[in-house]
Amino acid sequence: MTVRATVWGENVHDRENEIVRRLYPKGMHGCIADALNSDPAIGATAATLQEPEHGLSEARLADTDVLTWWGHKAHGAVADAVVERVAERVWQGMGLIVLHSGHFSKIFRKLMGTPCSLKWREAGEKERVWVVNRTHPIAQGVGASFVIEQTEMYGEPFTIPEPMETVFISWYDGGEVFRSGVTFQRGGGRIFYFSPGHEVYPIYHDPNVQAVLRNAVKWAANPAPAWADITAAPNVPVEAAPEPITERGPRLHAPGEAGYR
Amino acid sequence: MTVRATVWGENVHDRENEIVRRLYPKGMHGCIADALNSDPAIGATAATLQEPEHGLSEARLADTDVLTWWGHKAHGAVADAVVERVAERVWQGMGLIVLHSGHFSKIFRKLMGTPCSLKWREAGEKERVWVVNRTHPIAQGVGASFVIEQTEMYGEPFTIPEPMETVFISWYDGGEVFRSGVTFQRGGGRIFYFSPGHEVYPIYHDPNVQAVLRNAVKWAANPAPAWADITAAPNVPVEAAPEPITERGPRLHAPGEAGYR
Amino acid sequence: MTVRATVWGENVHDRENEIVRRLYPKGMHGCIADALNSDPAIGATAATLQEPEHGLSEARLADTDVLTWWGHKAHGAVADAVVERVAERVWQGMGLIVLHSGHFSKIFRKLMGTPCSLKWREAGEKERVWVVNRTHPIAQGVGASFVIEQTEMYGEPFTIPEPMETVFISWYDGGEVFRSGVTFQRGGGRIFYFSPGHEVYPIYHDPNVQAVLRNAVKWAANPAPAWADITAAPNVPVEAAPEPITERGPRLHAPGEAGYR
Amino acid sequence: MTVRATVWGENVHDRENEIVRRLYPKGMHGCIADALNSDPAIGATAATLQEPEHGLSEARLADTDVLTWWGHKAHGAVADAVVERVAERVWQGMGLIVLHSGHFSKIFRKLMGTPCSLKWREAGEKERVWVVNRTHPIAQGVGASFVIEQTEMYGEPFTIPEPMETVFISWYDGGEVFRSGVTFQRGGGRIFYFSPGHEVYPIYHDPNVQAVLRNAVKWAANPAPAWADITAAPNVPVEAAPEPITERGPRLHAPGEAGYR
Repeated sequence: MTVRATVWGENVHDRENEIVRRLYPKGMHGCIADALNSDPAIGATAATLQEPEHGLSEARLADTDVLTWWGHKAHGAVADAVVERVAERVWQGMGLIVLHSGHFSKIFRKLMGTPCSLKWREAGEKERVWVVNRTHPIAQGVGASFVIEQTEMYGEPFTIPEPMETVFISWYDGGEVFRSGVTFQRGGGRIFYFSPGHEVYPIYHDPNVQAVLRNAVKWAANPAPAWADITAAPNVPVEAAPEPITERGPRLHAPGEAGYR
Repeated sequence: MTVRATVWGENVHDRENEIVRRLYPKGMHGCIADALNSDPAIGATAATLQEPEHGLSEARLADTDVLTWWGHKAHGAVADAVVERVAERVWQGMGLIVLHSGHFSKIFRKLMGTPCSLKWREAGEKERVWVVNRTHPIAQGVGASFVIEQTEMYGEPFTIPEPMETVFISWYDGGEVFRSGVTFQRGGGRIFYFSPGHEVYPIYHDPNVQAVLRNAVKWAANPAPAWADITAAPNVPVEAAPEPITERGPRLHAPGEAGYR
Repeated sequence: MTVRATVWGENVHDRENEIVRRLYPKGMHGCIADALNSDPAIGATAATLQEPEHGLSEARLADTDVLTWWGHKAHGAVADAVVERVAERVWQGMGLIVLHSGHFSKIFRKLMGTPCSLKWREAGEKERVWVVNRTHPIAQGVGASFVIEQTEMYGEPFTIPEPMETVFISWYDGGEVFRSGVTFQRGGGRIFYFSPGHEVYPIYHDPNVQAVLRNAVKWAANPAPAWADITAAPNVPVEAAPEPITERGPRLHAPGEAGYR
Repeated sequence: MTVRATVWGENVHDRENEIVRRLYPKGMHGCIADALNSDPAIGATAATLQEPEHGLSEARLADTDVLTWWGHKAHGAVADAVVERVAERVWQGMGLIVLHSGHFSKIFRKLMGTPCSLKWREAGEKERVWVVNRTHPIAQGVGASFVIEQTEMYGEPFTIPEPMETVFISWYDGGEVFRSGVTFQRGGGRIFYFSPGHEVYPIYHDPNVQAVLRNAVKWAANPAPAWADITAAPNVPVEAAPEPITERGPRLHAPGEAGYR
């Protein structure tokens, strides 16, 4: 069973900024898709902001097991309807990997219910990513810790809900720390946030980072059938109650009437 | 220290439906505010949808330690700007108690990041609310379980994130179960969802339910100073790094430039 | 990759009680092992209290990916050294499925750090097991709920730590509820507790229960290399610090000395 | 209402090691008790390993709202019966603050169900303790971060269960990180682990550390009545079922018989 991954890239600095262009000639999304496709268990293709529906049509999402998300400058340009659609697909069971500056994307903030704010510094300093649980599927193959020679510092407080699992915590030259790899569950969807990945550094070429991305995509894939009606609030009529009951007292709704939303 | 509670009521069925009007002559919000005010440690006032800014101005929220929320028919009528404002105040540290059909309110869905859907049946059946942790502050004074003689059934699956604490689980005559009391933390704000409370039954007159509401309001009050800038993403300039570092490599942002949102 | 499952059975009532003997001629462990082996992805063998080292030698545990545990009358007869060994293997990454009255087993209480107490009633009443998250790997194939016609009631409060995930909640004829399927993580090991399974009823012959057991075994298998030294507390000498530092001030330990335990 | 705190100290290096004796003439427990007593809301007294029953008699624990625990060299000298007694009192609702090398104490390992292992280095290096949630009661008054000039490094992986809340994460000069302040709930008892506190450095004289200790003691105090029978597993006879049911089928236990443990 191949995991079908869609690698979403904002694709703005990838085209407009010369440093980024040089580091990532195919865009960061292209680099990430290549890294994923080096694993035969993953089949990855890219999608970008500039495509119709940002490349995230109903059909495309229906065929996606795991979506990775990189955005930074153009969070506001992502259509709300697409964000809603992605959220619903996550709830149905699609995995979501949110990368670096994606912490401020509409989709991540929507799924977290928190500001997702943090501190930052762009000084090309060193980051050491520590593994908290070395048996976690996402942490396989990267040792007890690994170093990113040049990184953007992301510092606590990172205003997310308490994670399901803290997989990585980062140390920075400049004195800060950050929960750099954290997991969440929202409906049927597994979510992994991973902070390394600033666009002016070659972070997505790093073998450890690429290993984490492959691991995360495979971890987030949920083979269960999609929870298609997860947003529905079905009425259970009295006569369909699991145990026989008799209606008592007044009611607000007429029989068969839908609930309020 | 008195906990300043604002009891928000949609106030639609309270006025329009004769059964509700008879059960709650002052509206459900009036009944709940009275129940809270019977505790000298709480000072509660009501606010409703029909007031300017739904009664939830910046000033009012700034003076609110804990907000309780009851809505049903008119979720869609709540202005998005007010929802955003309430969410921000929760992140800053205001407590939030979401009641019954408030599971589908904009504010609850925003803070959870999930559909918050469930099953339902309006048959006036019996609900038995079981206490999962009898030492929890919210469960004080209600015994090992208590019965609500006539209730609307809310059944699993309840599509919320895994709670911080499961305080109550309900049993229904008709054969369903429901996590009827659950807690969450979002930024500085404590959140409690409590499912009993259908408007055509006298549930908010029930002494156990009233005890839970008082307990919950006191539990949710956070005396810490408001986290006023929780949505900010401050830059830490190189020269302000906790440890002395030297900038290396390229950068995206000019010095002093704000980050993207 | 076949998951190597060891099905541990206390094997006391299985031999001594005529009802149990008739229901489970091969013992409950035999029945469970057969149910697991019906899935080609699982290779299950049984082990019992009466064997040397209770059938759980170092070598046997090293070759076990997931251990299932059923005990009731003879919890106290399980040697502490074996419990310690099983716990260490769980921490290293072995999955553990604890069944029914195993809630009071030494191994489960050790891994939970709580009393693991509950209420009970042996009346052959009906239990309806509700699925909280239908996309969870453990809940595949059993529908939105399933019924166990005759069960022992286990009722809340169930004094466990807040679970990582609540997968099932049960409803009982007699009015109680119970978190009947819950997951935990301890070190590298995934743990699933599943309450249905009283020995005088044919519960382990139930197709839904068998499906849950197969799902759980596959879910709990962790393919990561064993975390062999998880109980070690290694010293990191000054000269091996990731960043160069200079020793300052007094110290308690001589260089190279082991820490206290 | 004064919180009654018992400050438990192993009191070995406090007496035997000259450096420790000079830093803490009254023992670390004496220093900590003094720090707690500077808050009029706390009444703290010390207890030590050398007293009968280690100073932790049934009566003493019954009168204790929150116990703080410091041990290092003599973990093994703590009687198992006392550990069991403390655990039971925690389950009943007593708060527990575990300090520094107490991560390897019998009581902490028992309540966590994990190895509680970590890495360490005794080099007097600098530790910067970052606050993850600045509105948390335990983090009041210490700013966004604070520095401990000379510390023993404790490094990840820290093999604990996923915390209820991560309150502090530490950065070290030598390149490691550590979840230095984490909370858990076990039965009725709140638990806080706080890592700073090596005995050859004056850490318990640090105003920020003292503020954390006072905050933690007040946070951990649970005013609910003790859950006295939390380890009991009461039978609910058929005739006492909340809903009327009729016994069906065979049973294992005679009426009124106690369950197995």
